[in-house]
Amino acid sequence: MKSLGLRLQDKLEVLDQTLLPHQEIWCEVTDPQEMIRLIQCLAVRGAPLIGVAAALALGEFSVGKTELEIRIAALALREARPTAVNLMHAMDRMLLALEAGVDLRMEAKSIFAEDVLLCEQMAERGAKYIQDGDGVLTHCNTGGLATVGIGTALGVIRRAHEQGKKIHVYVDETRPLLQGARLTAWELEKLQIPFTLICDNMAASLMKSGKVQKAFVGADRIAVNGDAANKIGTYGVAVLCRHHKIPFYVVAPSTTYDPECPDGSAIPIEERKPEEVRAGKAPAQCKVWNPAFDITPKELITKVILENREF
Amino acid sequence: MKSLGLRLQDKLEVLDQTLLPHQEIWCEVTDPQEMIRLIQCLAVRGAPLIGVAAALALGEFSVGKTELEIRIAALALREARPTAVNLMHAMDRMLLALEAGVDLRMEAKSIFAEDVLLCEQMAERGAKYIQDGDGVLTHCNTGGLATVGIGTALGVIRRAHEQGKKIHVYVDETRPLLQGARLTAWELEKLQIPFTLICDNMAASLMKSGKVQKAFVGADRIAVNGDAANKIGTYGVAVLCRHHKIPFYVVAPSTTYDPECPDGSAIPIEERKPEEVRAGKAPAQCKVWNPAFDITPKELITKVILENREF
Repeated sequence: MKSLGLRLQDKLEVLDQTLLPHQEIWCEVTDPQEMIRLIQCLAVRGAPLIGVAAALALGEFSVGKTELEIRIAALALREARPTAVNLMHAMDRMLLALEAGVDLRMEAKSIFAEDVLLCEQMAERGAKYIQDGDGVLTHCNTGGLATVGIGTALGVIRRAHEQGKKIHVYVDETRPLLQGARLTAWELEKLQIPFTLICDNMAASLMKSGKVQKAFVGADRIAVNGDAANKIGTYGVAVLCRHHKIPFYVVAPSTTYDPECPDGSAIPIEERKPEEVRAGKAPAQCKVWNPAFDITPKELITKVILENREF
Repeated sequence: MKSLGLRLQDKLEVLDQTLLPHQEIWCEVTDPQEMIRLIQCLAVRGAPLIGVAAALALGEFSVGKTELEIRIAALALREARPTAVNLMHAMDRMLLALEAGVDLRMEAKSIFAEDVLLCEQMAERGAKYIQDGDGVLTHCNTGGLATVGIGTALGVIRRAHEQGKKIHVYVDETRPLLQGARLTAWELEKLQIPFTLICDNMAASLMKSGKVQKAFVGADRIAVNGDAANKIGTYGVAVLCRHHKIPFYVVAPSTTYDPECPDGSAIPIEERKPEEVRAGKAPAQCKVWNPAFDITPKELITKVILENREF
């Protein structure tokens, strides 16, 4: 099994996404603790990908282990990061398989295969909202690196391009960790889809200039009422879209939907280290606020596109 | 004469703002060409400061030069950067002084002294809009480094703090060149005014959380109808303020007001090099859009505060 950022042949390996686009280094993952570390430092990131990666790590680990050892590892993986619900869903599914006596390596592989399929279904469903000639703004990375398929929002954009629609993608660099500048730009270059990189704070001007017809983003958790958690900055993009009357779409698999979460206020938002923002440039000890995600209320979302329904 | 970023004793020197906050290196300016280079690389930046710095450079240069030599130097300085009108006003004033036979070193010194005074007047006028307990968002750098006095928007914030109002400043880092993270944070630390640094794309979430009561920004050019050019990202802040019902103030001296510019569409916007955005992180050749400024329409500005009037 192989995707843009994950491969399992004799051994399980992940592409260290913190080093992209300049270095492509694959890291072998020998146990769940190592996968937790890789997820926490964002070497492995993207809500769907971390669910699949954790499942594969648990599957490989499970061989020859006791049920208790597997259960402890699953719960530790489940808590690696708090916001994306795909990780929790994947671990809950693995624990159910464990109880049912299913081979966990097989279960992990079916989670992988399912994610590939979900991406295809989202792409088909979403691409109809992109017209020939559209400028499409996206935020963060939601492509092959964020999933094990062609992606969520970026999969939709890719499909529209494959359908022969002439589109231009505007890529928010996505501070502080630059998933747009480093990862989305890298993917779009490989795919030969025309794009322009901007700083996050240029999106407003770009919209005003008339170059953006649609915005497509992913999600880390979608509440029952349609509120969506996604990479910090997404909510701002949604507000700017509303002001400029630009449709704003959230694309995610149903593994990102959380039926136990009534609305966005119930989604925990991870805060990360100040140094990610300071980045060696700001005064060394200055106070920083560094939330990794924000919540976009459903009223600002034109449509939430899951693989099997839209609302 | 001495300000935070400029000093003239035996020689004219400027603080290289590209190296702040980690290195404080003063550069001697021996001729107008050198000042043009320092303005273009943003070692000297801030609309009021570049006007004063160019005037001082021309004043020092003028000693023993012919009128033609001075005129050529003034016109070259005038075109160093296209958006901020203060530079053009300062050069036009120097040329009028030249025609009138006024000592250009004296004229430059009076432009310096006037800028100090304008800052004081803006601070007094603006501080009444900040209440005890306010969270105040600002973008870019508009303090002692951007002027030769206490600043424009940041001068207002400083005056409110000096008046004993308990305020907290939220500093947009201001990509791509991080004038907020590097310069405003450095100034606020020196002034011991409490502040928190955020990435530009966190401002929306911060506003939604209720922590921002006012936004204060500077300007590089203000049109007759009140539209204001300012550092890229300002327009987005204004849109977010409107959505969250937060008052948005533009503070600038009348040297930033352009009576010949009817509205924002007539203000030229400088585009800068792609590498400022790529910053060694994005794919090396990827396409970038890098406007240095944007235009905020007057309808999004609660009040434009000049030193002598508000509208």
